[in-house]
Amino acid sequence: MIVIMQQEATEEQIGAVVERLTKNGFQAHLSRGVERTIIGVIGDRTRLFDMALEAMPGVEKVVPVLQPYKLASRAFHPENSLVPVGDLVIGGEEVHVMAGPCAVESEEQLLETAVQVRAAGATVLRGGAFKPRTSPYSFQGLEEEGLKILARARELTGLKIVTEVMDTRSLPLVAEYADILQIGARNMQNFTLLREVARINKPVLLKRGMSATIEEWLLAAEYIMSGGNHQVILCERGIRTFETYTRNTLDLSAVPVVKYLSHLPVVVDPSHGLGKWRFVPAMARAAIAAGADGLLVEVHPNPAEALCDGPQSLTPENFRQMMEELARVAEVMGRRLGGGAGPCSCR
Amino acid sequence: MIVIMQQEATEEQIGAVVERLTKNGFQAHLSRGVERTIIGVIGDRTRLFDMALEAMPGVEKVVPVLQPYKLASRAFHPENSLVPVGDLVIGGEEVHVMAGPCAVESEEQLLETAVQVRAAGATVLRGGAFKPRTSPYSFQGLEEEGLKILARARELTGLKIVTEVMDTRSLPLVAEYADILQIGARNMQNFTLLREVARINKPVLLKRGMSATIEEWLLAAEYIMSGGNHQVILCERGIRTFETYTRNTLDLSAVPVVKYLSHLPVVVDPSHGLGKWRFVPAMARAAIAAGADGLLVEVHPNPAEALCDGPQSLTPENFRQMMEELARVAEVMGRRLGGGAGPCSCR
Amino acid sequence: MIVIMQQEATEEQIGAVVERLTKNGFQAHLSRGVERTIIGVIGDRTRLFDMALEAMPGVEKVVPVLQPYKLASRAFHPENSLVPVGDLVIGGEEVHVMAGPCAVESEEQLLETAVQVRAAGATVLRGGAFKPRTSPYSFQGLEEEGLKILARARELTGLKIVTEVMDTRSLPLVAEYADILQIGARNMQNFTLLREVARINKPVLLKRGMSATIEEWLLAAEYIMSGGNHQVILCERGIRTFETYTRNTLDLSAVPVVKYLSHLPVVVDPSHGLGKWRFVPAMARAAIAAGADGLLVEVHPNPAEALCDGPQSLTPENFRQMMEELARVAEVMGRRLGGGAGPCSCR
Amino acid sequence: MIVIMQQEATEEQIGAVVERLTKNGFQAHLSRGVERTIIGVIGDRTRLFDMALEAMPGVEKVVPVLQPYKLASRAFHPENSLVPVGDLVIGGEEVHVMAGPCAVESEEQLLETAVQVRAAGATVLRGGAFKPRTSPYSFQGLEEEGLKILARARELTGLKIVTEVMDTRSLPLVAEYADILQIGARNMQNFTLLREVARINKPVLLKRGMSATIEEWLLAAEYIMSGGNHQVILCERGIRTFETYTRNTLDLSAVPVVKYLSHLPVVVDPSHGLGKWRFVPAMARAAIAAGADGLLVEVHPNPAEALCDGPQSLTPENFRQMMEELARVAEVMGRRLGGGAGPCSCR
Repeated sequence: MIVIMQQEATEEQIGAVVERLTKNGFQAHLSRGVERTIIGVIGDRTRLFDMALEAMPGVEKVVPVLQPYKLASRAFHPENSLVPVGDLVIGGEEVHVMAGPCAVESEEQLLETAVQVRAAGATVLRGGAFKPRTSPYSFQGLEEEGLKILARARELTGLKIVTEVMDTRSLPLVAEYADILQIGARNMQNFTLLREVARINKPVLLKRGMSATIEEWLLAAEYIMSGGNHQVILCERGIRTFETYTRNTLDLSAVPVVKYLSHLPVVVDPSHGLGKWRFVPAMARAAIAAGADGLLVEVHPNPAEALCDGPQSLTPENFRQMMEELARVAEVMGRRLGGGAGPCSCR
Repeated sequence: MIVIMQQEATEEQIGAVVERLTKNGFQAHLSRGVERTIIGVIGDRTRLFDMALEAMPGVEKVVPVLQPYKLASRAFHPENSLVPVGDLVIGGEEVHVMAGPCAVESEEQLLETAVQVRAAGATVLRGGAFKPRTSPYSFQGLEEEGLKILARARELTGLKIVTEVMDTRSLPLVAEYADILQIGARNMQNFTLLREVARINKPVLLKRGMSATIEEWLLAAEYIMSGGNHQVILCERGIRTFETYTRNTLDLSAVPVVKYLSHLPVVVDPSHGLGKWRFVPAMARAAIAAGADGLLVEVHPNPAEALCDGPQSLTPENFRQMMEELARVAEVMGRRLGGGAGPCSCR
Repeated sequence: MIVIMQQEATEEQIGAVVERLTKNGFQAHLSRGVERTIIGVIGDRTRLFDMALEAMPGVEKVVPVLQPYKLASRAFHPENSLVPVGDLVIGGEEVHVMAGPCAVESEEQLLETAVQVRAAGATVLRGGAFKPRTSPYSFQGLEEEGLKILARARELTGLKIVTEVMDTRSLPLVAEYADILQIGARNMQNFTLLREVARINKPVLLKRGMSATIEEWLLAAEYIMSGGNHQVILCERGIRTFETYTRNTLDLSAVPVVKYLSHLPVVVDPSHGLGKWRFVPAMARAAIAAGADGLLVEVHPNPAEALCDGPQSLTPENFRQMMEELARVAEVMGRRLGGGAGPCSCR
Repeated sequence: MIVIMQQEATEEQIGAVVERLTKNGFQAHLSRGVERTIIGVIGDRTRLFDMALEAMPGVEKVVPVLQPYKLASRAFHPENSLVPVGDLVIGGEEVHVMAGPCAVESEEQLLETAVQVRAAGATVLRGGAFKPRTSPYSFQGLEEEGLKILARARELTGLKIVTEVMDTRSLPLVAEYADILQIGARNMQNFTLLREVARINKPVLLKRGMSATIEEWLLAAEYIMSGGNHQVILCERGIRTFETYTRNTLDLSAVPVVKYLSHLPVVVDPSHGLGKWRFVPAMARAAIAAGADGLLVEVHPNPAEALCDGPQSLTPENFRQMMEELARVAEVMGRRLGGGAGPCSCR
């Protein structure tokens, strides 16, 4: 951390900053310029975050040197982390596609989708049983019944299950059924929930908040990791910008950036990022070309009848076509799709 | 709601949309232009939100005509809502200033602050016992001990207490102590929590999420109101933009806009919006001039020693000076500060 | 400037940075931490901007310590700058309201508006003769004929004229007629135009670009000032954010921030910032309460017939009422409206 | 266009809107709902943009149905447009990579770069002779001397030249040397310049403004096309968001969206979008996988000595490696790199 003093800062003010730092166990190095004095600070990065030095008289600004997260940083763990989900591995050579409807609506809807996405090469089934909806008047999910339907789909198809957990109260229930616990974008900074999933021995798919910086996202991962659960999968799903033609702006550059800053696997959700099914395949291809370890894609047997997010859902047929393209892009990246599909496979 | 069909939409596609609408109890009115057919839809606005018409073949886009919220809208309740907090009324003629530290740190710190902000004209004491912090390594609050200290400050000074509730689990405890339950910006779309505070007979101060549109903010209020609790106070606290000099961009235009769209009272938190105490008084004045019903301001007896948000905290002396200015601005607006302070008072 | 080296930076890499700096006339001070080496750099701030140190091997990031502008900074010129416009002074005790239509449409329209805004207390008449329009099919302005009409309105009413100059080619013509040259938001970084107005001895009203940071805005002012013209008036007019209910998000916090960083006067344009006339008076009051030196407001005798920006234009009657409120807010701020209006005046 | 009337709109107000529309040659269709009356409007879309109906009493809002651009829309021109640049074609089967330094600094620097990017498969050489710089103290380009150096590089290598034109004054000079005229992001709404390049028979590469919506970008293209020059190449280069780790947020979803809305070719500039060379190859691959027709990439023989944008420049060796990857991604897309490079070629 570097403390930049104001031009008019007095010796007393400079001394007070140095004293405060040393009293708290940090080392301070003064550097006096013509116009400004600068104080370099050495010590535990995670504690520096809390020293309110900018509130001290004479301080102009405080510049962090090290990232405020540690367990999530690549400096701490230089190799890519692999997150096993049963017999699958997220973050390894295989690219995994997690597909399914926005919400579980009925057994028939889910099983039909599951069979079709499995056939096309998906390895994980997505589907919400508890739905965070902007309006209180919208369909809020089938809750436990939805989880049971997901479990039946898993039995039938062998697909793993990723589903959202919205609060600590339903966490034990969701954890009983899910293979991967999804933390939604609106809950990325629900710190109570983060601390609770940290105590569970299950992979967590942590979506980026709609207005979260990459640093805040990695700090949210740090909450889970520092609580004891290192099985974190990050998921870019679009950020909020001024552009309104797409639902959000999918920040694909987050993929290489997170890969550089962190060792955690990164998957991309182009469905929420775009909000329009028509553009999903192009961005799914781009995500894999950018280095993503997987995708989260909405598929519905009849998007026009969907209770949630129909406009961004692919039909099973669209999905199948997309998977063929993705297999070829994965191959160019020296990877392959987890579900066995690929340009050279027996399809 | 208006459904705009694609230029190349077929008669079958148009018919399917109309049929789907009428089957669901809506009336549909066709209007055929040279290039496009448009379908006007009449029916329950809160249910339209969920019809995934954009996913139907031939549909170009769907344009809502009515706001998707009802109880929070001024059309539903033309008069300003008044929210009583004990003997205070938020949203009436009096402008209420809620002041205090970011976090309750100790009894001494809080009581000192309480006495001073009371003397300067504040009517409500703010202070966090449960703190949502970006980093897991930051001070997370004194929890129940903090609530007890807040209660002692209330006894001592007569100030009402506003404090944040972070999750459903601690809600009963926080509700026992607080006069106003604060929902933080990061929890504005924690729908489980919204539904739970809806069942409690206490005023709720609902902060706008960092990237929430005004419509989403009012829909979050609608969650609380539709659950039975109409005592909602909205709080603008800055939105996230590209500008980095300030911590957030305080969207003061939200004040007149919300006053126009809704009947709920609106207060402004310039401390979080700016992130730098130096600019807080100017924006506090501006907030009242824009029509805000109150303010939420961070005050700390020693900002440089604050465990949280010191750089944006006013000293008690700065606060006192600001309150004198605010009293004069309130007077110009035909209002007065709730705490009895004012340019003509006996201070 | 501070150079933060990567953790794994070698001695050669550190040495190369130091050598590059000293070769270019800067002083470099090394500070070696446990995890990182930091290099403090002293020298001409305006040249540091161009040293591509972040491209050197081993460099993690470069942090500027001083603002990259000089002439526009308050450190360079501690007193408020006063910009005279004939017998008016912008930036002094008087708050000046510049009012008029978006575009000059006809002599009748402009003269009627001019007479009415003058009566209500405006001191400067605004009106575009050259209009930057998003669509090529929109009304593009009356050009020279518009300038002549503005001049006639000035003769008739004594109001000063502010009007936009869109390019270097029409600059001599516009400069012949205008008392204040307006640089529009879309041209804030039209550096050719900035350099050209720098050579003219006329006040320049420099609108903030829609996505310009405060630093970039002050650097645009620096272009004009470093070219020899110090008569710069800054104008906040709203920035682009995710909120769509208002046309832009008026960043009123820019007013106290710019007043702190710079000595230049700042005025606010709530009409473009909001895009809806209904909310203009509230934000105009807020702007003055925040410390603005003036306002730029759209007024049209018949907004529904306006060729440009009708929805955000006040009628003369709305404007008159607003001015009465503004006079009272100005008084609370220890100022008065330039046009002589005020709560105690003889209106 | 659809006009939505306010709930309390009177018959007179509705009548006035209808009258105004019919008087201006539009057809108006009334549709009366329980809560609102809606008016469907039929007529010339490009003129509707200018009817200030939202300013009429009783009007709630106006919703456009058709895009406000015409010549740039795919509806107008269903086939992809091909833009020939000498013997190259932009927008066809070949993906063209335009590479070179941010600024032309010297003959040696440019020729070295040109030879190397040519060898790696680039077909167009980029390099600025006139540079729009945020600070007036930064290197502003070699101007005509720079153009001459570009011409020599063209002679030497056969590469086409793309270079920025900053204003109408230097346009004839730049047009004399350039094969493609680049309009920079800051000039996307410099309408005077757009109208002027519209009169020149040369391809124009139109960068998206930093805060321009896709609609505004296509309207800027419409300026050029409606003036007579249909050879427009669009270039996505990143938009401004709250994320600060990258210089801008590269909006790759703009590629499939623009391909859907328009027939114009789209290229991507990952160098400006990211601001850090390290992430450029990943996003370049992603751009092609998303369907881009080409790339604009900064390459400098010695980035650490670059006078401009060194941190985002690839070395020639990095560029060469990237091109090999890009060739494989292009192949998956059923395309090939313009410069003859490819996984199966004779390199």
